[in-house]
Amino acid sequence: MEEKPLILVTNDDGITAPGIRTLISIMNEIGDVVVVAPDTPQSGMGHAITLNNVLHCHPMSINDGPQLEYSCSGTPADCVKMAKNELLNRKPDLCVSGINHGSNSSVNILYSGTMSAAIEAGLEGIPAIGFSLLDFSWHADFRAAKDFIKKIALNVLLNGLPQGTVLNVNIPKLKSDEIKGIKICRQANGYWKETFEKRTNPMGKNYYWLDGEFINQDKGQDTDIWALENGYISVVPVKYDLTAHHAIQELNNWEL
Amino acid sequence: MEEKPLILVTNDDGITAPGIRTLISIMNEIGDVVVVAPDTPQSGMGHAITLNNVLHCHPMSINDGPQLEYSCSGTPADCVKMAKNELLNRKPDLCVSGINHGSNSSVNILYSGTMSAAIEAGLEGIPAIGFSLLDFSWHADFRAAKDFIKKIALNVLLNGLPQGTVLNVNIPKLKSDEIKGIKICRQANGYWKETFEKRTNPMGKNYYWLDGEFINQDKGQDTDIWALENGYISVVPVKYDLTAHHAIQELNNWEL
Repeated sequence: MEEKPLILVTNDDGITAPGIRTLISIMNEIGDVVVVAPDTPQSGMGHAITLNNVLHCHPMSINDGPQLEYSCSGTPADCVKMAKNELLNRKPDLCVSGINHGSNSSVNILYSGTMSAAIEAGLEGIPAIGFSLLDFSWHADFRAAKDFIKKIALNVLLNGLPQGTVLNVNIPKLKSDEIKGIKICRQANGYWKETFEKRTNPMGKNYYWLDGEFINQDKGQDTDIWALENGYISVVPVKYDLTAHHAIQELNNWEL
Repeated sequence: MEEKPLILVTNDDGITAPGIRTLISIMNEIGDVVVVAPDTPQSGMGHAITLNNVLHCHPMSINDGPQLEYSCSGTPADCVKMAKNELLNRKPDLCVSGINHGSNSSVNILYSGTMSAAIEAGLEGIPAIGFSLLDFSWHADFRAAKDFIKKIALNVLLNGLPQGTVLNVNIPKLKSDEIKGIKICRQANGYWKETFEKRTNPMGKNYYWLDGEFINQDKGQDTDIWALENGYISVVPVKYDLTAHHAIQELNNWEL
């Protein structure tokens, strides 16, 4: 019998989040699953790693399937490093991160713990995918996403991924029969227009909450935002060589 | 009299670090300086932002120059958002981050709070540069870096930066007369080979420290690592559109 693929599952909403529990159940249909996920929510942690503190990591079980599970005190990127270098005895065939409760389209990828876990896996030579559903609710309905997630994961296991890339998959908040299909996209050129809500604590000291509104300034019909607004699942191939190669020539003309 | 440029200074080592104090002194020679920097070390924080906690930010003074200063409880990216949207009454003409105590060359950019502050400023439409010295010591000698940093900052103020890019500048740990010059580079293709050091706390519970060794698998002579190893300051233009545009065509051939 052929060996089943080894699949590492992680996320940034924490190991008990419904999104990761759904992702685990899908991956159990494909391979042998090991979960290494944060013990607390890590949304907005970007590609943070734990340098100035210790890490705790211990086996645990939620008893909803045959997977092995570890709960880790660190960030999503820490979890992937811990899995690859300490917990697993061979390199996973696939790493999936999510399903995130909320969008990671456009520039949100930069702040996303979900996607940083996928990128960290990519750096470690593991084909990787981050999945996000456009619904921030803890009680989000992940049912429509299931078949699409399985199909995309099977394709990555079959084809591999282009050198130096991972996938950023976002799923619209729609019913199965309302989703029109899957589109390969580029990252939309958007940004957050922040506001800081200033409050006063019981001791009279000021503090702030970060808030904001997402602005999409990109009218292209080849972007992830366009796809999601038009009923498609968006798949953006993401690279972690951040060099702006096109800018090198221009900078070489400077007087430095 | 022409208005002086408004320069925002931040870092990830914290507002009292010698690296940022040096950077402030250089920027005071060029423009009107406002410092918004973390009140505690934020190394390895990547592009984290504070979503699940409150932020504190208050004016402070170290009395080593005419700059205005604010100390902030958040991450480097939070500091830039706070500066742009809450503290400053006009958009800065330049944002500089650092001088980091330690390298941010190659893939280290992904984990770097210093560079995430620069990228955040870029997203906000502010020309931005991250500076790092290849010396992790708190007592690092920043003197050789000074003239080069001033020259690069003046060039960015004069020329602007190509659309959607910021600069990642790394400076070798050398004396002034040993630095051969400045090279425009691409990000070297390297990675961290991690080890986790397992220890036991006084209560008998295991914990880990993340450790590792940087591996450069890139023999190119156009990389930042090559430049630094050969006595040059490396300048990498960095973009925050992470789309792997070259991979879109290949993925469009998948059965999705």
